[in-house]
Amino acid sequence: MARPVRVVVLGAGSWGTTVAGLAARNTPTLLWARNSEAADEINSQRTNSKYLGERKLPKGLKATSDLVEAAREADVLVCGVPSHAVRATLAEIANEVRAWVPVLSLSKGLEPGTRQRPTEVIAECLPGHPVGLLAGPNIAKEIVDGMAAASVVATQDDRVAAALQPLFASSVFRVYRNTDVLGCELGGILKNIVAIASGMADGLGVGDNTRAMVLARGLAEMTRLGEAMGANPRTFAGLTGVGDLIATCMAPTSRNRRVGEALAQGLTVEEAVAKLGQVAEGVKTAPTVMDLAREYGVDMPIAAEVEAVIGGRQSASDAYRGLQKVAPGGEHEVA
Amino acid sequence: MARPVRVVVLGAGSWGTTVAGLAARNTPTLLWARNSEAADEINSQRTNSKYLGERKLPKGLKATSDLVEAAREADVLVCGVPSHAVRATLAEIANEVRAWVPVLSLSKGLEPGTRQRPTEVIAECLPGHPVGLLAGPNIAKEIVDGMAAASVVATQDDRVAAALQPLFASSVFRVYRNTDVLGCELGGILKNIVAIASGMADGLGVGDNTRAMVLARGLAEMTRLGEAMGANPRTFAGLTGVGDLIATCMAPTSRNRRVGEALAQGLTVEEAVAKLGQVAEGVKTAPTVMDLAREYGVDMPIAAEVEAVIGGRQSASDAYRGLQKVAPGGEHEVA
Repeated sequence: MARPVRVVVLGAGSWGTTVAGLAARNTPTLLWARNSEAADEINSQRTNSKYLGERKLPKGLKATSDLVEAAREADVLVCGVPSHAVRATLAEIANEVRAWVPVLSLSKGLEPGTRQRPTEVIAECLPGHPVGLLAGPNIAKEIVDGMAAASVVATQDDRVAAALQPLFASSVFRVYRNTDVLGCELGGILKNIVAIASGMADGLGVGDNTRAMVLARGLAEMTRLGEAMGANPRTFAGLTGVGDLIATCMAPTSRNRRVGEALAQGLTVEEAVAKLGQVAEGVKTAPTVMDLAREYGVDMPIAAEVEAVIGGRQSASDAYRGLQKVAPGGEHEVA
Repeated sequence: MARPVRVVVLGAGSWGTTVAGLAARNTPTLLWARNSEAADEINSQRTNSKYLGERKLPKGLKATSDLVEAAREADVLVCGVPSHAVRATLAEIANEVRAWVPVLSLSKGLEPGTRQRPTEVIAECLPGHPVGLLAGPNIAKEIVDGMAAASVVATQDDRVAAALQPLFASSVFRVYRNTDVLGCELGGILKNIVAIASGMADGLGVGDNTRAMVLARGLAEMTRLGEAMGANPRTFAGLTGVGDLIATCMAPTSRNRRVGEALAQGLTVEEAVAKLGQVAEGVKTAPTVMDLAREYGVDMPIAAEVEAVIGGRQSASDAYRGLQKVAPGGEHEVA
C-alpha cells in the first residue's frame, strides 16, 4: 500500500483549522499555527477556542508552531493565512517545500499593493508547483458542526484536482472539481463586495425582491469582470460564484454583510470595522476591484457604489438610490 | 402625439393585479377579473383585498369582468391567469384580439397534460402574435408597497421588448430585456422545484452552507436542462434564473418553499397543500420536469429527489440524505 498523503495546512484561523479538520479525517494532517499556545491547545484539548469555541476537532489532527517543520512534512500544502500574509509566510519556507508539492489556497482577498490573487502570489513564491484553491459556500463553524456543505478544488490540471478531491471529501462535505482557477478565485474575492451591497440593502430594510436583484445583478457584474479577465463565465454560476455569494449574503455572521449593515445605519467605514472588531475582505478589495474594472473596461455599478460608500464619498442610502439610476438595457449587457 | 398604448391584463390574482398597477402608472390599463365583485372592488375601493389586503392600487387602474370587452381594448395583452387556465381563457377571445397585439405571459407553470410552457399555449391559441413574458424576482406585495425590484421582458425580437419596457418600468421597478424567451420562461418554472428542495432543507434545520449548496447545484441542473432544450445558459445566471430562485427560496411567504418545509416536517404532499390552502406550482410541475429530464438525457438529482418526495416514494429526510450520495465530478458535468 502507498504511504498516505500528508496534508499540511498553514494558518489556524477558523477556515484553516476547519479544512485541516476535514483532511485529518482522511489522511495524516498537520496544522501550522503562528501562535504556540494555539498549537498546544489543539494538541492537548482538541479545540481552537479563539476561532471555533468549544467545538471538538478530529483526534488525528496535530498542530505545530514550527513553520519549517510543517513545510518539510508536506505532500500537499494548503495555504490558509490571510491574503496580506501569504507572501511573507511562504518566503520563509520556499526552500523547504519539495518542488512537486501542490499548493492549495484558501484565501479570498487580493494582496495589498500588488493587486495579485493568492494563487499568483503562491506561484511567485513557490515557482513550478501545481497551484490551485479550495473554495465554495463554506461557513467554517457549520462544517465543524458536521452540517452538509459542498466545495470545489480548482487546479489547471484536472488530474491534480482529482487526486486532491478525496483528501478533503466526506459524506457531508462534497468536493467538486473545476479547471478554471481564475474564475473560482475571482468568485470568492468579488462576492465580498456584493455581500457588502446586500448588507447595505438589508440595513436599509429592503425586501426579498430587492435583495434578489442586488445578488443577481451583482453576479452579472462579477461574471462580466471575470470573463474580461479570461475566466469561464459558467464558473460564476457555480459553487464558488453564486453559491459562495448566497451563503455570504445570507449568513448573519458574515463580516462583509455586517459591514454593509453598519454602513446602512450611517456608521463610517472606520466605525463599522471597529464595531466588527476585524476588517472585512470586501472593504480592502473594493478599490482594487474598481481599478480592475476600469482597466478591463467593464461596467460594475454595484461595486462602484460600494466603493464610493467605503471611500466616504456618499452614504449607503445615496448608493442605494444610485443603484436605481442607470437605464436598464439587455440583461447580459450593461447594468 | 401618438395615442397611448392600452395595456390589458387578464387575471386579477396578486401578480396580475400588481403588473396592471405598474402599467397603470404609465399608460391606460384595464384589468380583467373573472369575478365581478373583485372588478367592482378595484374600481370603487382601489383594493384587491383577497390577494393584496389593504394595499391601494393606482388611481388610473380600471377593472372589468367582461373578457371580450377587455380583449377588444388591448394594444398589449398580458396573460396573468394560472397556467392551467391559459388555454381556456384565450380560446374565448381568440377572435377578439387584433392580430399584431403582443402577448406577454406572467405564468410560471406547465400546462397539465400537454407539458407546454405558457408561451407555447399562447402561440397555439393566438397564432402569429408576438409572444413573450415578464418575469423575475418579483414578490407581488413588495412591489405594490413600492419596494425596489427588477424584472425582464423577454421577446424573440428585441425591438418588441424595447417597446414594451417603458410600459412597466418605474424608478423603483427596473425592466431589463432578453431575447431568450425559452430560458427566461424555464427559469421561472424550474426554480419552483429547487425552492421546494430548499424549503425541505430549511425544514430539516440545515445551515447556510447547505442552502447555498442546494441553490447553486439546483441552478446547475436548471441550466443543464435549459441548455439541452435550446436556451442560453447565461439566462439562468440572470434575474429570471438565479434572481427568481433566490427570492423564491428566501421569501417566507413563498408557497413552494413552504410546501418543502411542510414536507420536511413529515406531512404528506396532500397535507402540505391543505395546510397552505393552495397548490404550489412546483408540486404540479416536478413530475413533468422529470419527464423532460429523461427525454433530454439530463441528470437532475435534486429535482428527482423532490419528485420522489412529492410522489410519496420517500421522506424528505431520506431525500436530503440522497442529495449526498452521488460522487461529485467536474462542477459543470454531473451532480
